[in-house]
Amino acid sequence: MRALVYDGTGAILTDRPDPRPERGEALLAIRLAGVCRTDLEILDGYMNFRGVMGHEFVGTVLAGPPGWSGKRVTAEINCPCGQCRLCLMGLGGHCPTRTVLGIVGRDGVFAELVAVPVANLHEIPDSVSDDQAVFIEPLAAALQIFHQVAVSDKDNVVVLGDGRLAQLIARVLMAKCGRAVMVGRYARRLVVAARAGAETFLAADFTPAAQADVVIDATGTPEGFELAMQAVRPRGTIVLKSTFAGGRPLNLAPLVINEVTVVGSRCGPFDEAIALLASGQIEVASLITARVPLGRAMEALLAAKNRENLKVVIEVGEP
Amino acid sequence: MRALVYDGTGAILTDRPDPRPERGEALLAIRLAGVCRTDLEILDGYMNFRGVMGHEFVGTVLAGPPGWSGKRVTAEINCPCGQCRLCLMGLGGHCPTRTVLGIVGRDGVFAELVAVPVANLHEIPDSVSDDQAVFIEPLAAALQIFHQVAVSDKDNVVVLGDGRLAQLIARVLMAKCGRAVMVGRYARRLVVAARAGAETFLAADFTPAAQADVVIDATGTPEGFELAMQAVRPRGTIVLKSTFAGGRPLNLAPLVINEVTVVGSRCGPFDEAIALLASGQIEVASLITARVPLGRAMEALLAAKNRENLKVVIEVGEP
Repeated sequence: MRALVYDGTGAILTDRPDPRPERGEALLAIRLAGVCRTDLEILDGYMNFRGVMGHEFVGTVLAGPPGWSGKRVTAEINCPCGQCRLCLMGLGGHCPTRTVLGIVGRDGVFAELVAVPVANLHEIPDSVSDDQAVFIEPLAAALQIFHQVAVSDKDNVVVLGDGRLAQLIARVLMAKCGRAVMVGRYARRLVVAARAGAETFLAADFTPAAQADVVIDATGTPEGFELAMQAVRPRGTIVLKSTFAGGRPLNLAPLVINEVTVVGSRCGPFDEAIALLASGQIEVASLITARVPLGRAMEALLAAKNRENLKVVIEVGEP
Repeated sequence: MRALVYDGTGAILTDRPDPRPERGEALLAIRLAGVCRTDLEILDGYMNFRGVMGHEFVGTVLAGPPGWSGKRVTAEINCPCGQCRLCLMGLGGHCPTRTVLGIVGRDGVFAELVAVPVANLHEIPDSVSDDQAVFIEPLAAALQIFHQVAVSDKDNVVVLGDGRLAQLIARVLMAKCGRAVMVGRYARRLVVAARAGAETFLAADFTPAAQADVVIDATGTPEGFELAMQAVRPRGTIVLKSTFAGGRPLNLAPLVINEVTVVGSRCGPFDEAIALLASGQIEVASLITARVPLGRAMEALLAAKNRENLKVVIEVGEP
């Protein structure tokens, strides 16, 4: 099969043997895959990953247990051992020996085929298109915030960042609370959120006033986290939604002085994301700004690095 | 009166006019005062403070409303405006225009006399000695943790740090949960906690294993916070109890990847601290390792900088 592989030095489109599903796994044909910031970080050495890249996708089951064949699906990305202390606590997503689709020790979805545990599969209802379904994984990550932090429509909530994840978070906020405030650096991206109904501010025009009940930092930069500490009110909450590595010394004293809570937030509930898309309450497909066939998948990575783009998808096609 | 004053360049023992209580304030004679890490940070420019230093104390009311005169008291350190949005939310401790005893815009307690708002006073019962009562403010700060984070005796809790505040936190933990684990850098300080019943580890011998349900970081160093991120389990909680300013780039990615919650924690409930001391459930007076009369108060600051000491107190005497 054709696959986009990271070999430790760069991403290369290559021929690979077809995956052979192990016991408990299904074989899927990929239809559509999404490029995520994590994929770009893998190019910079994140998790020291080697193998087929990609973890956001829609596929069709080619081989699996009775009842699954031919179904249109996506899959949760964490593959836990099921037996360790964390797995037994129900925290399989944090299993220390887990593999993660296209991120840790397991081939991903920028390919014609992938093998994933049957337990990870989620069927996609007919009312959700491929263009919507490719957002299930990041939309679940956005929904996770609301499982970790009580947010009401009376709260003053600010989303920092204007990228793919920030756009989804703003849409979920609008669906749940009726409004969303987004602070970003790229006018073209803010316009997309504004069209969807968000109040948007260029970071240069935004004066943090220690008034927000909840600040959701989806910037992935130390500067974003510093802005979050300035924008949140005393005893307020910062949700830290994307990672950044070092870069500059951070002064965390404001967290203590203002008794702020920081909540690290990662993966979320797929079922809920699917239901939200099926309900038609939020629109996501317009976030796709570039489509690239698998045969030119390396261009997809370049396109995703371009700040003019929001979601870049790789089209693999019908099985 | 005599007072230890920070003038922007150093601390100096000097004569000052006696304080004149404003409306709503009481005049107190200081009996005993404690030196805190914040006092040492003020010498380094913290909060750009100028004036009489010190905020931990026991005093006697010399002049105040009927019923208060002659009473032995301590006082909460935050003096809020009472009218702003945060004050009306019940968050007077975070009032943006508040003064803070010996820290922000208000003379403190390393002096013979101090004026404080009557609303801030707490009477000290006879069963609590001056040596105990001088710990009310930091003990309240230790108790605050348990108002912000649910800690049960089934939880694996680790206290990082072996200084004054860490020692109090460990004692509160033992009172509430039956045990405390402390990781520190100074054997002499760890011995004090061990004698009080804590399990102690030198940081060099402690291997963080991402297993603690709650890590309380009272180190005041970026290294301590990094250790906390390594010691806490996925979905666990780090309580950030003391501040540090920059120093080195911090990688907060583990907070996101492991979905950790960080809770900044500062001042706490005086009433509860007084009741805990009065109950005899915890012993604190043995944490006093040096006593210095007000006339040699500058030596108290030097003594507090010496890692061999835990709590250093300044004796002012009977009115």
